Amino acid sequence: MKTSRPPIPMYLLFVLMSLAGCAEIRGTGDMGIIIERAKGSIQVIETTGRTDLYRLEGLGDLSHASVVYSRDGRYGYIFGRDGGLSKIDLLSRRLVKRIIQAGNSIGGAISQDGTMVAVSNYQPGGIRVFDAETLDMIADIPATGVGEGKRSKVVGLVDAPGQRFVFSLYDSGEIWIADFARRNNPLITKFKDIGLLPYDGLVTPDGRYYLAGLFGEDGLALLDLWAPEKGVRRILDGYGRGEKKLPVYKMPHLEGWASVGGELFLPAVGRHEILIVERDTWREVGRVPVHGQPVFAVARPDGRQVWVNFAHPRNDVVQVIDVPTRRVIKTLTPGKGVLHMEFTPRGEQVWLSVRDRDRVEIYNTHTLERLGMIDADKPSGIFLTARANRTGL
Amino acid sequence: MKTSRPPIPMYLLFVLMSLAGCAEIRGTGDMGIIIERAKGSIQVIETTGRTDLYRLEGLGDLSHASVVYSRDGRYGYIFGRDGGLSKIDLLSRRLVKRIIQAGNSIGGAISQDGTMVAVSNYQPGGIRVFDAETLDMIADIPATGVGEGKRSKVVGLVDAPGQRFVFSLYDSGEIWIADFARRNNPLITKFKDIGLLPYDGLVTPDGRYYLAGLFGEDGLALLDLWAPEKGVRRILDGYGRGEKKLPVYKMPHLEGWASVGGELFLPAVGRHEILIVERDTWREVGRVPVHGQPVFAVARPDGRQVWVNFAHPRNDVVQVIDVPTRRVIKTLTPGKGVLHMEFTPRGEQVWLSVRDRDRVEIYNTHTLERLGMIDADKPSGIFLTARANRTGL
Repeated sequence: MKTSRPPIPMYLLFVLMSLAGCAEIRGTGDMGIIIERAKGSIQVIETTGRTDLYRLEGLGDLSHASVVYSRDGRYGYIFGRDGGLSKIDLLSRRLVKRIIQAGNSIGGAISQDGTMVAVSNYQPGGIRVFDAETLDMIADIPATGVGEGKRSKVVGLVDAPGQRFVFSLYDSGEIWIADFARRNNPLITKFKDIGLLPYDGLVTPDGRYYLAGLFGEDGLALLDLWAPEKGVRRILDGYGRGEKKLPVYKMPHLEGWASVGGELFLPAVGRHEILIVERDTWREVGRVPVHGQPVFAVARPDGRQVWVNFAHPRNDVVQVIDVPTRRVIKTLTPGKGVLHMEFTPRGEQVWLSVRDRDRVEIYNTHTLERLGMIDADKPSGIFLTARANRTGL
Repeated sequence: MKTSRPPIPMYLLFVLMSLAGCAEIRGTGDMGIIIERAKGSIQVIETTGRTDLYRLEGLGDLSHASVVYSRDGRYGYIFGRDGGLSKIDLLSRRLVKRIIQAGNSIGGAISQDGTMVAVSNYQPGGIRVFDAETLDMIADIPATGVGEGKRSKVVGLVDAPGQRFVFSLYDSGEIWIADFARRNNPLITKFKDIGLLPYDGLVTPDGRYYLAGLFGEDGLALLDLWAPEKGVRRILDGYGRGEKKLPVYKMPHLEGWASVGGELFLPAVGRHEILIVERDTWREVGRVPVHGQPVFAVARPDGRQVWVNFAHPRNDVVQVIDVPTRRVIKTLTPGKGVLHMEFTPRGEQVWLSVRDRDRVEIYNTHTLERLGMIDADKPSGIFLTARANRTGL
């Protein structure tokens, strides 16, 4: 009698496929997400071979979308504009869960220990905090009422050490700290009258200083998170749109402020300049003339260079500033609509999204030569998993 | 006729096991390696649930062993004392390759782009550089001859931006830069007469300044890698063992120097003090009295605290310095033989190896309370995969 090897049962094939094919065994440290804004999709990429791995669709309105990562680098949390919060498993290549947690939202943050994800909402104004594992809501923190049943929009939400989230209230001119050290019993500290219409915020890379940009007046609001009892103070009085000497095409992003040694390089508002500010005194110590109105000024991780992109109509150019000489050493023209720049964590590469060319370009930051390109549909933000290791991103 | 589901064939079981069990599908961002020095083994751990995952044995002499990681966080490269270089796959839980590349070695580094691993050798004195993928040798750079066919020992090997490795020659008193931007044709720059007997080196976290500690005289040798043409200069003239007022039980490690804002907190040699040095001027600006002769002074990633361990016989204690007030705010006594401290990348936890208690203790850095423990056999160094994202570690 002949024996034959039994055929592979279908259920086993399925298990094998799901293990081997769909869920990939690989390190997550070199992965990242590119937002495809118009299409509501993302591309997942890796920076070692500089390739795109796959696309995921159906993520809603991804204008101004941003991403944070779980502490193991496996899961990305995508904050959409439509109140959508999507949890992606980079390894199994799937959407784990998607909730619509508000009507209109802008960005979010993940707690220092990675257990909580917070979202900054316009409608209803406030923040909501979710369990990073399940996306179940842990806390709903409504912003200050501003009449007619409305609440202030929330902007500039960041994480800070000690399980804190810090954010600004646009309409009511406040900065709040929400301390989640006792997870189910957050402690809220409110700073009022910090200035008119804070439109964005950042925390310095060490998590110490929170700054809010003001749309309604000049200057910036500064809060020292090591000494919050000292309150919010105003710095850089000339910084803002108050002078109105130039039309402002786009308010610069604060997230990208380049922190280099004891100095910050920051985009001037409405001017073709980068301002250099000394961090100890918060005084301006220099200016670098640049090609247009800067949007992002981002430091290469070693602080030797600052890369700058620009507002419409000059958004086809990227300039590279050499920090010690404070001069532009290179002008690149990747094409119209350079929206975002992301360095690999040790700074050897930078990835630029070039919206109108439907591609992401990758440069060697030492030779300033192009290393490669990735096709992407109207790419905007680029977010590498290395962000999981950093504060305030 | 009855049909029955065929049994699972053995070969499929094997495939399933190897996919599901041995090679794990998980993010690598929260993983790490604990060196078990006496046993020649490692424990692989994760910091989210704070558990040990598995042990790997047979890695040779692991005294003073250190680890660097591939840019995706999947592979660890372990530098043993016996010249062994071992490549570990954290996900498939196996030793991928092990070579004995020299007779006696001390530490190593991985290039900025992750393609090359360099090892610092005592015997034969020099560095050797290997392909990170295959461990094939790319370059053999012998150190300066010191007579009788011997070459200087190499110490303090670090990576620096631009595919550079920087290291010190103990016997001949030199610092060399090996520039591997052209991988197969490295460019070596040599700095001679930098001081007597450099015994260790570090590069600041931004990759800009290389410092070598001197065993043979006071002071430190400083090289600005942004301006190497300016040469090596001497700083901190009083720093060293020259005064010989106290017996020196162990020369402090340089790697751990805490860089906080514009200041460095560094272990004094032979004294029960931490010195505070201003980075712009390289002058001492303060001292903090501590429990014993400090070995490592490591900053919490946000720079708010500096954690210090001590030389024998006071090595059962760890002290926590509050940076703004420059005072010890907590004295912990984990037990004899606290050899190393490693923070999680966003700083919410610190892991301490406590050799004589055969365990690693984990603390919450905000409450300063113990969060957990991991059993380990005579643990020494602790190395988290987040190091893959950082320069000079």
